[in-house]
Amino acid sequence: MTNQVRQAERSGMVKAVSVADYIVERLSAEGINHCFGVAGDYVFPICDAVDSSAKVKWIGCANELNASYAADGYARVRGAAMLVTTYGVGELSALNGVMGAKAERSLVFHIVGMPSYQHQRLHKIAHHTLGDGVFGNFVDLSADAACCHAIINPENCVVEMERVIGEARRNNQPAYIAVPSDYALSPVMSADVKPIVPRSNEVALRKAMAIIEERINKAKSVVAFPAFTILRLGLQKQAQKTIEALGCPFATTLMEKCVLDEGHPQFAGMYAGAVSDPKTRQIVEGADLVLDLGGVNFNDITTAAYSAQLDLSRFITVGLGDVRIGDEVIAGVRLADVLSELAKLKPSSAPYRGARQELAPVTGNPSDKITMVALYPRYAAFLRAGDTVVLETGSTSLGMTPTTLPDGLRVEAQVLWGSIGWATPAAFGIALADPGRRTVLITGEGSHQLTANDIGAMGRFGANVIVFVLNNGGYLIERALEENPDWTYNDLAPWNYAELPKALGCADWYTARVTTLGDLDDAMKAARASKTGAYIEIIGGKMDMPPALAFAHSRLREMYGGTP
Amino acid sequence: MTNQVRQAERSGMVKAVSVADYIVERLSAEGINHCFGVAGDYVFPICDAVDSSAKVKWIGCANELNASYAADGYARVRGAAMLVTTYGVGELSALNGVMGAKAERSLVFHIVGMPSYQHQRLHKIAHHTLGDGVFGNFVDLSADAACCHAIINPENCVVEMERVIGEARRNNQPAYIAVPSDYALSPVMSADVKPIVPRSNEVALRKAMAIIEERINKAKSVVAFPAFTILRLGLQKQAQKTIEALGCPFATTLMEKCVLDEGHPQFAGMYAGAVSDPKTRQIVEGADLVLDLGGVNFNDITTAAYSAQLDLSRFITVGLGDVRIGDEVIAGVRLADVLSELAKLKPSSAPYRGARQELAPVTGNPSDKITMVALYPRYAAFLRAGDTVVLETGSTSLGMTPTTLPDGLRVEAQVLWGSIGWATPAAFGIALADPGRRTVLITGEGSHQLTANDIGAMGRFGANVIVFVLNNGGYLIERALEENPDWTYNDLAPWNYAELPKALGCADWYTARVTTLGDLDDAMKAARASKTGAYIEIIGGKMDMPPALAFAHSRLREMYGGTP
Repeated sequence: MTNQVRQAERSGMVKAVSVADYIVERLSAEGINHCFGVAGDYVFPICDAVDSSAKVKWIGCANELNASYAADGYARVRGAAMLVTTYGVGELSALNGVMGAKAERSLVFHIVGMPSYQHQRLHKIAHHTLGDGVFGNFVDLSADAACCHAIINPENCVVEMERVIGEARRNNQPAYIAVPSDYALSPVMSADVKPIVPRSNEVALRKAMAIIEERINKAKSVVAFPAFTILRLGLQKQAQKTIEALGCPFATTLMEKCVLDEGHPQFAGMYAGAVSDPKTRQIVEGADLVLDLGGVNFNDITTAAYSAQLDLSRFITVGLGDVRIGDEVIAGVRLADVLSELAKLKPSSAPYRGARQELAPVTGNPSDKITMVALYPRYAAFLRAGDTVVLETGSTSLGMTPTTLPDGLRVEAQVLWGSIGWATPAAFGIALADPGRRTVLITGEGSHQLTANDIGAMGRFGANVIVFVLNNGGYLIERALEENPDWTYNDLAPWNYAELPKALGCADWYTARVTTLGDLDDAMKAARASKTGAYIEIIGGKMDMPPALAFAHSRLREMYGGTP
Repeated sequence: MTNQVRQAERSGMVKAVSVADYIVERLSAEGINHCFGVAGDYVFPICDAVDSSAKVKWIGCANELNASYAADGYARVRGAAMLVTTYGVGELSALNGVMGAKAERSLVFHIVGMPSYQHQRLHKIAHHTLGDGVFGNFVDLSADAACCHAIINPENCVVEMERVIGEARRNNQPAYIAVPSDYALSPVMSADVKPIVPRSNEVALRKAMAIIEERINKAKSVVAFPAFTILRLGLQKQAQKTIEALGCPFATTLMEKCVLDEGHPQFAGMYAGAVSDPKTRQIVEGADLVLDLGGVNFNDITTAAYSAQLDLSRFITVGLGDVRIGDEVIAGVRLADVLSELAKLKPSSAPYRGARQELAPVTGNPSDKITMVALYPRYAAFLRAGDTVVLETGSTSLGMTPTTLPDGLRVEAQVLWGSIGWATPAAFGIALADPGRRTVLITGEGSHQLTANDIGAMGRFGANVIVFVLNNGGYLIERALEENPDWTYNDLAPWNYAELPKALGCADWYTARVTTLGDLDDAMKAARASKTGAYIEIIGGKMDMPPALAFAHSRLREMYGGTP
C-alpha cells in the first residue's frame, strides 16, 4: 500500500490518495473487510472512504456501543476489526465496548472523525462539544480505552498508522485513531516506513527457553493452561502441538472454554477452584509446574469466587510479549515464538491420557417444563463442530461452561470484563467475520434487553445467527448474588421476545416461544434447518439456577470482600 | 437529614444509618423521587438503599446510556436527578449521556458502586476490571463527565456529599459519586456541615448591577436573550418578570424554543442568523445592547451554520455564576440574583410590542401523502398548553423549532451536545418527572433505533408518552449534510416501528402506522385520547426536508470548515 501510494504520486497519473482512503485501505490489509459503526457528520469522510472501498463494507449498527461489541466479536475471529464513530457523542458511547476489548485483548481499531483542523484552530463553538471552543476534551478518554493512539494529519498519517498498528498488534488491544474532518480529505504525504511486526529478541528468547526447558525437565508433574489469548491470536494449532510435545495434561478456566477440543486425550477438565472436578483440581493444584501459555486471568469468576489454591512460585507465565518465572520477567519474548520452540521438543512417548469427558445425557419428557438441568445438556447436544457459540455473561456462561461440549466448537464469552449485553452484538460481528461457521447466541433476557436493537442489523446484513433467549423473569445472576433475590431492580420490562425479530425487520426469521422440553426440541430442529436467522424464546423458572451459580451464591462474602 | 442522623446516633435508639442509605436520603432532599439505572453487583448496596427507600423509586432502564438520558430529562424538569450504575462496564456505558448533561447544564448525580475497599486494598483480580488489580482506571474518565466528584467513605460521606451537591448546584452540571461496596454498608459518621447554597457575593453583585443598569440606560436599543439555563434552573417566571420590567424585545435561539411563551407581546421571534425572520434579525443584530440572560450558546446549530452577525462588544452575558461585559468578568454573581435585581426596575411604560406570531395553517387533503410542509403545522396544532414536547436532534428539531408553537408548552431538546438517540429515554425521564403534563416525543427513526429499547420501560412504569416516529427510510439529517445523500451508511435496518410497543411489552398502548394526512389526523386524535402511551409511525419521503435543513445543506463549507 505504501508503495502503491508513492508510485501513484510519482507517476502523477492518479489522484493522490486521501488520508481517509489511506486509512481504510491500510486497515483492510490487516484482514478487515467490514467496518462497524454509526455515521455522523465529523466522520463522513471516513464513512465515505469505507462506502467507496471495494474491500471494506460498511456495517451500520443501531448504536455505537453495539458497534463496539460487534467489532470486538469480529476481531476475535479475524484478528482485528474496524470501528468508526463520530466525535464526542459517538466515541464516548462506544467507550465501554472498546475498554472491554482492551481488558480481553481484542484488537479493535477505533477511528473517530473530529471537527476540522480549521475549526479547531479557530476555537469555533460547535455541536458535539461542551460549547467551549475546546477540541481536546475527549481524546484522552477514548485513548484510555486503547493501548495506543494517534491524531492523524496528512504528514504523520503513514508513520502513525504503522506505529499504532505495530503497537496494537504487540498488545493485541485497541488502537484509537482520531482524524480531523478536513485532514481526512487531504492527500496523504508519503513516508518510508515498513509495517512493524512484533517479534522476539533472539537473546531473550534463548534465555527464556533455557529456563523453561530446565524447569520442565526438573518437574515431576506439569500442567499446561492455554490462555484466552491463544484464541485471540489464532494460535490454537501451535498450542495444541506444544501440549502434545510436552505430553502433559492441560486444563482451562471458563475463560478458555473449548480453546482446544475438550475431547483431546490430554484434556484434564475445566479448572475453577473449588468447583472443579476433584481429579482436575488435584492435577492443577498439585502440579510441580504450571505452564501458563498466554496469561490466564485468575480472577473471581475463573476461580469460582477466589476458591483456587494456586502457588504462583510454581508458575511459568508466557505472556504475549514476556515470560515471567517467579520474580524474574524476561521481556521481548513473543508467545508465538515460545510455542514454536516448545513444539520442537521431541513428542512425549507417554503422554497423559485423561478419561474422555462425554456429553451429559439429554433428559426429561416432552411435556416437562424447561429446567436448567434439562436445558444445558440440550445445548450441548444441539451444538456441533463448525458452530461458534457466543455466551452472555451471567447464568448463561456459568451454566454452559461446566457443560462438556463437542469438538470443533468455538466458544466466545466476555468473562473478565463481563459487560452484560455484549453477547448479542458480538454474535453479529462473529457471524460476519466467518460466515462459514454457524453462529449461535445463548443469552439471558436481562442482558439481551441492553442491546437487542441490533437484531435488526443481523437481518439487514444477512447474519444468520441462531438466538436463544432465556426468559426467566428478571436478572437471575443478580438474584443469585444477593441475600434477597426479590429487589425490584432485578425485574424487567415484560418483553414479548419472540415478536422482536419481526418488529425489527427480520420478517423471514424462524421464531418460537417455548415452554416445554418437547417444544424446545422441535424449535432447535427448526432453527438448525433455517436458512435465515432463528430466534427462540425459552421460558424458564425464576430462581432455577445452574450449579455454578448456586456455588457463587454460597461464597458471596469471599467474592466481594465482605459485601454482596 | 444531617440532624436526623446525628439525633439517631445520639439516641442510640435506631440502627446507625448506612452510607448507602444516607446518600439516597440526602439526594431525595434535593427533590429527587426516582432513580434511573441498571443494577450490578458492586452497586447492590446502593440499589438496595433505593429499593428500601420510601422516597425514591428504582426505575430500571434497558441500558446505562438510556438511563443517563432519562436522568438528564428528569433533571431538566426537577432540577436534579439520580443515576446509578455499576463499576467500569456500567459507568462507562453512561459516559456519553452524562457528558451531554454537562454540556447542556443538567444536574445528574451519577452514583457508581466500586469493588470493596477490602479488595481494592488487596489488589484482587476482579471482574469488570482490566484484570490488573488496579481500581483507579475508570474514576477519572467518569469524573471528566462531571463538574465535581468524590470517592466516598464512611468518614468523608457527610462532608463530601455537601461539597459535591453545592458544587453541582453552583454549575448545574453532573456530579460523580463513587462508593466502594463495603463502605456503602458501613454506618455513616456524622459531621457538622450545613448544605452549601450558591449565592452571590454582595459587593460583586452591586458592581455588576451598576454596570448593567448604566449600559441599559445608555442603550438606544436593547434585546434580551433568555438562555436555556433559565429553563434548567426553573427561572422562567423571574426571566419573564425581568423582561417585562425592561420592556425590551426578547429573542431566543432554537436551544431556547418556548422558554417563554412565543405568544408573549415582547417576543421578537427566533434568532438563527441568516434564517431568522428579517425583522428579528434586525432587532438582534442591530441592538445597541444584547442582554444574554444565562449564557446562550451561539454555535453552528443555533446560528444556522455560523451565519450570525453578532458583535460581542455589545453583549452583556449573565452566566450562572458570573457576568461578562466586554473583557471584564465579574465572578461571584448568580444569575437568579441578577434577574431579581433587574425585575426591581420600574416596569417599562412603553414596552416593545411585536406582531403576534400565529400558528401556521393546517393544510393538505386527507388522502395526501405526508409531507414536511404539512407535518410540522400539524404538530403545532396538536400540541397544547400543559404538554412537554421532546425533540430529537436532526430533521425533527430543525423542522419543529422554526414552527410557532402554542403558549404553555415546554420544549426540551439537546441542541448543543446533539447525541442522537437522546430524545426517547429523555422523554421517559421527563414524563416521570412531571406526570401532570403530557409528554410528547417527536423523533426520526434513525435516532430512535439507538435507544428504542426503553419503550418497554415506559410501559412498565406507566409513563404515558405520545411517541411520533418519522420513518423516512434513513438518516435524513445526514443525507442533507452531504453532497451525496445515497451513501449506504445513511440506510437503516427496516424496522416495523408500529409493532415495537407490543413486542416490548406495551400491549395496551395505542399504535398506528400512517401514510396519509387523514390517517395522521385520526391517529393524533386517538393518541390524545389514549389513557396509556401512544406510538405513531409516520411514513415520510426520503429526501423531503424541512427548510432549515435545506439551508444548512447550502452552507456545508461554512459549517464544517472546508469539509462536510
